[in-house]
Amino acid sequence: MDTNVSANIKTLKVALLGAGNVGSQVARILLEDADALAARTGARLQLVGIAVRNVDAPREVNAPRELYTTDASALVRSADIVIELMGGMEPARTLILEAIEHGATVVTGNKALLAVDGPTLYEKADAAGVQLSYEAAVAGAIPILRPITDSLAGDKITRVMGIVNGTTNYILDAMDSTGAQFADALADATRLGYAEADPTADIEGHDAAAKGAILASLAFHTRFALSDVHCQGITGVTAEDIAAAKDAGYVIKLLAIAETLPNPAAGKTDDGAPALGVSVRVHPTLLPREHPLAAVRGAYNAVFVEAESAGELMFYGRGAGGTPTASAVMGDVVSAARRLVLGGPGRTDSSIEVLPVLPIEAVATRYYIGMDAADQPGVLSKISTLFAEHGVSIETMRQTVHREREETENAGPGSAELRIVTHRASEAALAATVEAIKGLDVINSVTSVLRVEGV
Amino acid sequence: MDTNVSANIKTLKVALLGAGNVGSQVARILLEDADALAARTGARLQLVGIAVRNVDAPREVNAPRELYTTDASALVRSADIVIELMGGMEPARTLILEAIEHGATVVTGNKALLAVDGPTLYEKADAAGVQLSYEAAVAGAIPILRPITDSLAGDKITRVMGIVNGTTNYILDAMDSTGAQFADALADATRLGYAEADPTADIEGHDAAAKGAILASLAFHTRFALSDVHCQGITGVTAEDIAAAKDAGYVIKLLAIAETLPNPAAGKTDDGAPALGVSVRVHPTLLPREHPLAAVRGAYNAVFVEAESAGELMFYGRGAGGTPTASAVMGDVVSAARRLVLGGPGRTDSSIEVLPVLPIEAVATRYYIGMDAADQPGVLSKISTLFAEHGVSIETMRQTVHREREETENAGPGSAELRIVTHRASEAALAATVEAIKGLDVINSVTSVLRVEGV
Repeated sequence: MDTNVSANIKTLKVALLGAGNVGSQVARILLEDADALAARTGARLQLVGIAVRNVDAPREVNAPRELYTTDASALVRSADIVIELMGGMEPARTLILEAIEHGATVVTGNKALLAVDGPTLYEKADAAGVQLSYEAAVAGAIPILRPITDSLAGDKITRVMGIVNGTTNYILDAMDSTGAQFADALADATRLGYAEADPTADIEGHDAAAKGAILASLAFHTRFALSDVHCQGITGVTAEDIAAAKDAGYVIKLLAIAETLPNPAAGKTDDGAPALGVSVRVHPTLLPREHPLAAVRGAYNAVFVEAESAGELMFYGRGAGGTPTASAVMGDVVSAARRLVLGGPGRTDSSIEVLPVLPIEAVATRYYIGMDAADQPGVLSKISTLFAEHGVSIETMRQTVHREREETENAGPGSAELRIVTHRASEAALAATVEAIKGLDVINSVTSVLRVEGV
Repeated sequence: MDTNVSANIKTLKVALLGAGNVGSQVARILLEDADALAARTGARLQLVGIAVRNVDAPREVNAPRELYTTDASALVRSADIVIELMGGMEPARTLILEAIEHGATVVTGNKALLAVDGPTLYEKADAAGVQLSYEAAVAGAIPILRPITDSLAGDKITRVMGIVNGTTNYILDAMDSTGAQFADALADATRLGYAEADPTADIEGHDAAAKGAILASLAFHTRFALSDVHCQGITGVTAEDIAAAKDAGYVIKLLAIAETLPNPAAGKTDDGAPALGVSVRVHPTLLPREHPLAAVRGAYNAVFVEAESAGELMFYGRGAGGTPTASAVMGDVVSAARRLVLGGPGRTDSSIEVLPVLPIEAVATRYYIGMDAADQPGVLSKISTLFAEHGVSIETMRQTVHREREETENAGPGSAELRIVTHRASEAALAATVEAIKGLDVINSVTSVLRVEGV
């Protein structure tokens, strides 16, 4: 029966660019599961070449020696489907453009390139009528882009919150469960292979920001680039922040958040509703421990979506790793092959709305503020008056006296840890409040200011 | 700009069958969001009629009076896209067949019909080359069918475990958090609208079984019907079972499980691997409390998928309700409209493998057994010998002496609660063991036998 299948069906030539962690697994699936893939797509997916820098380098997967080539450009021009898994800016960008010009369907997992140059690539693909898919670029194996573009296409997404970086989730989870400081948790993550030798892109939030730009683009039908994302990493999160959050029923996660908000710079739309803009941001965030995202442990990823009709949805799974990411790549390849077999024109995720990017100052959230204060009468009153003067409303206020100081410094004034969670406040009002607090003589220091979501 | 759009683009005629809870929300979205839907599909989706039993009945949503009709058959023959939301067997079945013959794309949320007669409907749709979509039939708003058929199309799914019935999850969750007995939790669920007046289909597991058949069909490319699903409901789950499970670190959930297993009736395949079959079953299941499905609270649904490359994935959201389910229906409608606009032929989820259904006896799982035993020396030894004789290996054994009996019945022998979790055992071996236990003079009764998964 397999012979019949292969004799009668179309062949699609597949070019693979890159044979690293993910690429080698994609090659393995294409070679090992050829019959199942033919049955599912109606086409034989023929791997015609693997572009690498050095054809003689040792590989994880044994593909036939003659498939390897250093001439990526020639390979791209011979293919129906081009899978780009080289990563980085160049030559990936040029090769994708060559594939689009040549009319090949492109599948890529290159989030960094898409975040920087996505808008150009999407436009070129649109203009050429070819399909550009990139499920693997966000949250690894988790099918999230297709549910957003297809399953929720008849709904209105209002907010997307994602744990989209496994390294930082691993570190924050370790800090939460062991009480470790950031530097120690990072060292552990590096030793165990969860963090790279240079962890900057992860811990500073740049990787999450790139994925946030892609998620926002799809959820809100508007093209966003990395430069539109307000980004704050986790290097400033201390063990004390995490302990205080835990004590108050929260967990700290690095979230990529994209949401529509009223645009303060615009007026109303024709039908009287406020005109909307989109805020895209990455920052450490306090989440209630009962929130579904709070249960996402270790290096797992998850994306929480709020839509007008569907309500709350969550998509959970492995965010990285060669094999899981290869699964996402192959999902795109099979979909592309089905479309090529069925004869319909390719569809890219063209944007059809243009919503403005809102600055971080336009975002009102709840805030958590930790302070080191003098343990003396009147402190709480001084601070709450000051919050009220700045129009920031306090939801909860909690004071913990430092026991060791009580015991050792009985003669002088003790010190107290003061933690406040506010109601929604603008960044500007909050910043002004924090500045004023620092000027109070009863405040030794403001130890942390973090946003609170999910309540 | 909207005028330009509507002037230049294609119109697709949409017929809606049924105006209940879900249908009325679908009508609302089609009418209210017409411009956004046109922009997303490239076609104006024109609602040409709503088939109802009584055109004068009061409705939740104000659609123009002239859209309502009692002639469903004529409406179906006038449409490009038919949305069936009447539920039940007839006339839904006949109308869907009419739509298929007429060449219309069909979107339905009718899980009961699909579970009973799905194979016939899929074949008719295949033969006619029309598309039949039913995302709303499983897990309400959660996009799960499209991720399985498209995103994981290049992977091999090995297991699907779903909390796909909100009513039973609500009841079990309430029993878990309050300690209530089943009857009381059911009464509460009925009062709060989480259970219907006749809750049989939910609490006996029939609704979950219908969804299990659909999930299994898509995950394993083989058509399964309701009669292929082994089904056990939650009416036998007691507050004591839940308390004991909780005490041992487990939660009890009603799961629909579909998995490939070696087929004991078949030999090996050509390449030496064991031939596979599929087990599809619904039963109350002990899950470790740290399992992602354990955190699914209240009436929420979630589907946990294990795939060879992707690893573990979970999809979470609202499983019922008019508005969330309407979101899933509209996702199918938009996808169908895009395909009609782009000109590609419709694709149904045709099955391409034929895996046999395995009987429940072929499934080896771990088991939890609760017993009421005499509190006297030698009981544990008798029981463990008996397990060993039947080839069932014990993982943990836990004995709790009933304190009240100790105090009041000091003269006679006391009673002890005994709870055993086994390693994997076949249904046959377990049943023989339980029979033998019942014959022991030191055993008063076997209070529960439940399967354990997720470990």
